Amino acid sequence: MTSKLLVVGSVAFDTIQTRAGKVEEALGGSATYVSLAASRFAGVNLVGVVGEGDFPQEHVTLLKSRGVDVAGLERAKGRTFRWSGVYADDFSSRTTLDTQLGVFESFDPKIPAPYLDSRYVLLGNIHPALQLKVLDALPRAEFVAADTMNLWINVTRPELERVVSRVHLLVVNDEESFLLTGERQVRLAADRILAMGPSAVIIKRGEHGALLFTRDSVFYTPGLPLPEVVDPTGAGDTFAGGLLGYLAGESAHDVASIRRGMLYGTALASYAVQGFGVTPLTNLTRAQIDSRYDEVRKLTSVEG
Amino acid sequence: MTSKLLVVGSVAFDTIQTRAGKVEEALGGSATYVSLAASRFAGVNLVGVVGEGDFPQEHVTLLKSRGVDVAGLERAKGRTFRWSGVYADDFSSRTTLDTQLGVFESFDPKIPAPYLDSRYVLLGNIHPALQLKVLDALPRAEFVAADTMNLWINVTRPELERVVSRVHLLVVNDEESFLLTGERQVRLAADRILAMGPSAVIIKRGEHGALLFTRDSVFYTPGLPLPEVVDPTGAGDTFAGGLLGYLAGESAHDVASIRRGMLYGTALASYAVQGFGVTPLTNLTRAQIDSRYDEVRKLTSVEG
Repeated sequence: MTSKLLVVGSVAFDTIQTRAGKVEEALGGSATYVSLAASRFAGVNLVGVVGEGDFPQEHVTLLKSRGVDVAGLERAKGRTFRWSGVYADDFSSRTTLDTQLGVFESFDPKIPAPYLDSRYVLLGNIHPALQLKVLDALPRAEFVAADTMNLWINVTRPELERVVSRVHLLVVNDEESFLLTGERQVRLAADRILAMGPSAVIIKRGEHGALLFTRDSVFYTPGLPLPEVVDPTGAGDTFAGGLLGYLAGESAHDVASIRRGMLYGTALASYAVQGFGVTPLTNLTRAQIDSRYDEVRKLTSVEG
Repeated sequence: MTSKLLVVGSVAFDTIQTRAGKVEEALGGSATYVSLAASRFAGVNLVGVVGEGDFPQEHVTLLKSRGVDVAGLERAKGRTFRWSGVYADDFSSRTTLDTQLGVFESFDPKIPAPYLDSRYVLLGNIHPALQLKVLDALPRAEFVAADTMNLWINVTRPELERVVSRVHLLVVNDEESFLLTGERQVRLAADRILAMGPSAVIIKRGEHGALLFTRDSVFYTPGLPLPEVVDPTGAGDTFAGGLLGYLAGESAHDVASIRRGMLYGTALASYAVQGFGVTPLTNLTRAQIDSRYDEVRKLTSVEG
């Protein structure tokens, strides 16, 4: 039995400059990366918002062709979310040049009736009050993962803590885990987050990989050392999308499945950063994904 | 059959301040950490220099009691190398407060006759001309690892390149690999170093672990996420010492043995940083080391 994954988050146009080149208004946004990664393993129901006049039909066609249901992709009066940024040559940092939230600023996720029995859910990085609203609408949710960001940790902490207490998996990066807990040691930060409610927390560490903590285990997925990085945008969302898509596809969320999902997420993210935007994700074969999954596994295998 | 490990490098007094406290003039130096880590697996022959009047007999006794032969520990006129530094609270950086090279400034390693048939060698971070001199004195050297530092890369590059061309394993950190090759991508930096001669290169990434590259393989040892770090001084040397000690003890240097050695090195380093100076290394039981080796292995095991 496979489940579908419900994804709630941003759909955007990204203008991205790296030492490898530049793209203008490429399809992006966290929910887009998540959906295109997850759809390699499971059907995806996407809830998001775009502008009523500026979102090309070809993007909708692309999403549909990859198994993403877009009944929940609202078209609102105004412009689609636009982001523009430039990466340092060594990819250690990026500078945001422009953010125009557009219709995303007043995004109020509406869950279409057929999605209301969703069991696997990824709550993207939106206002915690909206994440709670989505959770309230999903009585059969069995495994919910949530992302967040510094802004919500700083300005909406009480609501964010309610979200954390109700999800099964929180996915954050090093800096967010520190902001949320005051602990720099990742082991202690994870313990504090687990004490807030989730049964699992993943702390992402960029090119170094990601750590999964549960109450009684730790698991580490290394990043694959790549000869070339073209565009890191969406790598974390691709990782989370691959993971949650795998879990939904397997209808499983035991620890071993989460670990395997992290390896798939890492495999997909390693492809994603080798081209601009979502393009690398759209052309992958399952054989390519499996081959890189093996590569990630072998990276830590003593026997080779 | 086991071999002994020949270690050439610094013996020093370290004054270290971290958020966990402070120690004054504690026994330190790269050759000390390497020797005390390596001696858990093999006999160690130590070549270094200390001051003739200021090096306490208790340190010599400690080294001997751990199976370290100190016939090559020269006592020279002057003072022992002293270093003093303070770590940032999050251990992401450290500031050197004082460096007094003392007798180490004119260190000219003399290899005692019984060490001349050494097969396993770790050339610590000394002037590349001295590393070459040691190499010339060891006709039976079968597996030589070398460490270096930014200073030698910047000011003695031709000699350093000769060292790199003659060793089997180069151990550097991210920053050194970039300085040496001009490549930020660790995969490309490793390829450049391998093209210079060694059959293997290890790129250390601090708390994130270390990567081993050979011509046709990559291996990743993650760092163990620890609840508490007291003093990271010597962690890299402890890692290298554990690795080389394991190889000498096994008299093996195939890729699988190097990988296992890296796990042992990681296990030892994880203990080393949980106390000040070399103290944590001196009291460990083999059972404790093996238990942490298993912990490091399990960190990347999907099956748990």
